[in-house]
Amino acid sequence: MRMVSLLGAALVVALLAFLAPAVADDDETVAGRIVGAALVDPGAYDRLAYLTDRIGPRLSGSDNLDAAIRWAAAELRADGLDDVHTEPVRVPHWVRGEERGAILAPAAHPLVLTTLGGSVATPPGGITADVVAVPGFEELERLGDAVRGKMVLFDRPIVRNGGAEHGYGSAVELRVHGASHAAKQGAVAVLVRSLGTASYRLPHTGVMSYDDGAPKVPGVAITAEDADLVERLLATGATVRVHLEVGARTLPDADSANVVADLRGRERPDEIVVIGCHLDSWDVGTGAIDDGAGCAIVMQAVATLKRLGLRPRRTIRAVLYTNEENGTRGGKGYAEAHAGEIERHVAAIESDSGAGTPLGFGVTAGDGGVEAVRALAGRLLGIGAADVRSGGGGTDISPLRKAGVPSLSLRQDTTYYFDWHHTDADTLDKVDPEDLARNVAAMAWMAWSLAERDAPLPRPAAGEGDGE
Amino acid sequence: MRMVSLLGAALVVALLAFLAPAVADDDETVAGRIVGAALVDPGAYDRLAYLTDRIGPRLSGSDNLDAAIRWAAAELRADGLDDVHTEPVRVPHWVRGEERGAILAPAAHPLVLTTLGGSVATPPGGITADVVAVPGFEELERLGDAVRGKMVLFDRPIVRNGGAEHGYGSAVELRVHGASHAAKQGAVAVLVRSLGTASYRLPHTGVMSYDDGAPKVPGVAITAEDADLVERLLATGATVRVHLEVGARTLPDADSANVVADLRGRERPDEIVVIGCHLDSWDVGTGAIDDGAGCAIVMQAVATLKRLGLRPRRTIRAVLYTNEENGTRGGKGYAEAHAGEIERHVAAIESDSGAGTPLGFGVTAGDGGVEAVRALAGRLLGIGAADVRSGGGGTDISPLRKAGVPSLSLRQDTTYYFDWHHTDADTLDKVDPEDLARNVAAMAWMAWSLAERDAPLPRPAAGEGDGE
Repeated sequence: MRMVSLLGAALVVALLAFLAPAVADDDETVAGRIVGAALVDPGAYDRLAYLTDRIGPRLSGSDNLDAAIRWAAAELRADGLDDVHTEPVRVPHWVRGEERGAILAPAAHPLVLTTLGGSVATPPGGITADVVAVPGFEELERLGDAVRGKMVLFDRPIVRNGGAEHGYGSAVELRVHGASHAAKQGAVAVLVRSLGTASYRLPHTGVMSYDDGAPKVPGVAITAEDADLVERLLATGATVRVHLEVGARTLPDADSANVVADLRGRERPDEIVVIGCHLDSWDVGTGAIDDGAGCAIVMQAVATLKRLGLRPRRTIRAVLYTNEENGTRGGKGYAEAHAGEIERHVAAIESDSGAGTPLGFGVTAGDGGVEAVRALAGRLLGIGAADVRSGGGGTDISPLRKAGVPSLSLRQDTTYYFDWHHTDADTLDKVDPEDLARNVAAMAWMAWSLAERDAPLPRPAAGEGDGE
Repeated sequence: MRMVSLLGAALVVALLAFLAPAVADDDETVAGRIVGAALVDPGAYDRLAYLTDRIGPRLSGSDNLDAAIRWAAAELRADGLDDVHTEPVRVPHWVRGEERGAILAPAAHPLVLTTLGGSVATPPGGITADVVAVPGFEELERLGDAVRGKMVLFDRPIVRNGGAEHGYGSAVELRVHGASHAAKQGAVAVLVRSLGTASYRLPHTGVMSYDDGAPKVPGVAITAEDADLVERLLATGATVRVHLEVGARTLPDADSANVVADLRGRERPDEIVVIGCHLDSWDVGTGAIDDGAGCAIVMQAVATLKRLGLRPRRTIRAVLYTNEENGTRGGKGYAEAHAGEIERHVAAIESDSGAGTPLGFGVTAGDGGVEAVRALAGRLLGIGAADVRSGGGGTDISPLRKAGVPSLSLRQDTTYYFDWHHTDADTLDKVDPEDLARNVAAMAWMAWSLAERDAPLPRPAAGEGDGE
């Protein structure tokens, strides 16, 4: 019986080999294998669920971020990747503390607010002051001395899909630099209208920084509703008086690390395509869309290629950066640690715009680079990710870009991204597993393509893409 | 010269009188005057802005509610209405106090929550217990003794425009009666998934009550995100341990009042059409859509008729009820105080579904009542408010309905209502002034029509419309 079985099995194998079409390992075939494998694989979502549900938010200096770094390295090792290791980086250690605020006059209202990352605390007992509201720095300057002793509300609404004119980028300078601008004119604190695109009394945090020489005054983001209320009260001619208490502290820098894992190249292992994301997050929500999703995409992209036995010509390197949110020390640290091999970095792709369906790529490269990437992305038409535009990169890979590395961003649909970005509502339920899997497919295919093609992408001029 | 001028003026007047078409004071003309006047008048929005921005949330027993009652009576007096007065009602006096909660295991997460109105406090130090999750009472019962010592999560999501099957009404029993159901099986506290239709980490409060004989355990609403998280953690087989601290207290009943103002009828002043809303709100947000908008509509509707010099055949009575949210003492109090004249109440209309564009009316009346209202609402086709359906009323006027008064609800578009209902985000910015003005037009026209028509609406059978 056993003999008969073995003979039968051998026959079947021979027959199958005869019937199977000759499968060339060509571009289209590989694209199909990568995209298909990514789309049927729930792995990215499972990783993201663990990262957000079991570890949680991951602010620099927190135990959670340390746990996430250990977890990610262990996962990538289990995936069988090469030379998985962490690269130490010192990061800012800011902690939020208690925070509260209220309108005292002309009527009592609580303010729903969140301290901006990096803010100093209020003095004991808090700060009470009258509010002046401005839409931007020009209007602030025109107020001159009228700002002295006041609390300044920076109130510039952003709109959904608002682009450079009316989107996040149009107002983020107010959050980052508003406190110092106002303090130079004598303001005692700043309130910033949350940079968000929905109205659910949800404050949006984010980083702020102090200019050298400017007095350090506290900065908080209030909700869109509360900013509207202040404006309406001011419009009646009333004096609007606000009380603010912020307990934030900046502790000494903490130890942290980037997580690095290679899928080593078969022909030119010392030439590198970086695919990156950031593992840190704000301390509100669980950092699912910013940027847990990006890290799930990056991890699953290299794991998928590895699992498929696809060893690229050059090395594909996953880098899970630390401290993107409040210091960008991870990105700077990687570029410094690898300064001697920047020339051998042939491209870098970052995923840091959430988990919306992938639309394509943004590209910063030398002449012909956008067209080259567009040709490669053509294979992603069937998953809607073939739209390639000029201008791309990401905060973590910007030091590489500045040093001349062709830089790409995986472009996600961000229609709802700024509804939840930097808030308590940045949680796993905002991520669609299907969209996430499509992102893995797009990232894996582009990384493979850039690592595989004969000629590397043309390098951008130094400084190309700055100011984005 | 003066003589010539006077003669000229007299000639002009005579000529105009000759040229002017004969304007009959007919139905269509009156409808046009009412609708036109309402649509060009920003008064309702201005009133709502004052009520929400200058007074704020108005929970029963609060100083804010007292201030709102005084303000509303003064406004209606200034509008020149008849016999403006307040009718005393004693109301429950529940206060929120501190509230916080957290998942302790299998991972640490803060819970974003709001205490349910009427809840008792946790014991000093709070309650720590493992969680069991159920979608409803049947599943709870099936768990039997397994609930003992546990915290029960009632987790039944509702959906946008979900109707009776999947909307607010499908799950509200869990919020109201969940604590007692769970406590009878030995549970130590209940968490209820917020009854909301958006996901912005926003908890929705609302009333709960305790059954006689059941132990009183605290009840809070957690956000949709937090309910999902608990379910995902439970699905991994983990034990989910939660800590809860609730400082709520129920104080002795407080003095409050309904505000009543008449537009006295010209022929049958003792026959009454009530138009109603509730002036109280929850203590979160500012009660703009629930139900400041309804009161702005009711106030502006009678003020508009008064201003136009339209004195109806019967009396139109504005009633701004107190304590709809947590006790319905205002509605009961009015019915008791006017028990002797219920027969002379020919109709009641309530506006308590927000400030969305008016769609029409719901009607609970005797045979032919719906058709009669539909005929009257036909004049509102041009503002989209002509859709009349069977079944209508409102919490505040339900004692009147039960006593046989034909009852109508002004039906608003509630597509987004349950995104913000009973939350911190129930604020003025959710109200579109244009929609609000349309509601005033619809309410004023229907009140006028019911007060004016020869025969009153047929009265519903006692108990008709119960269980809605």
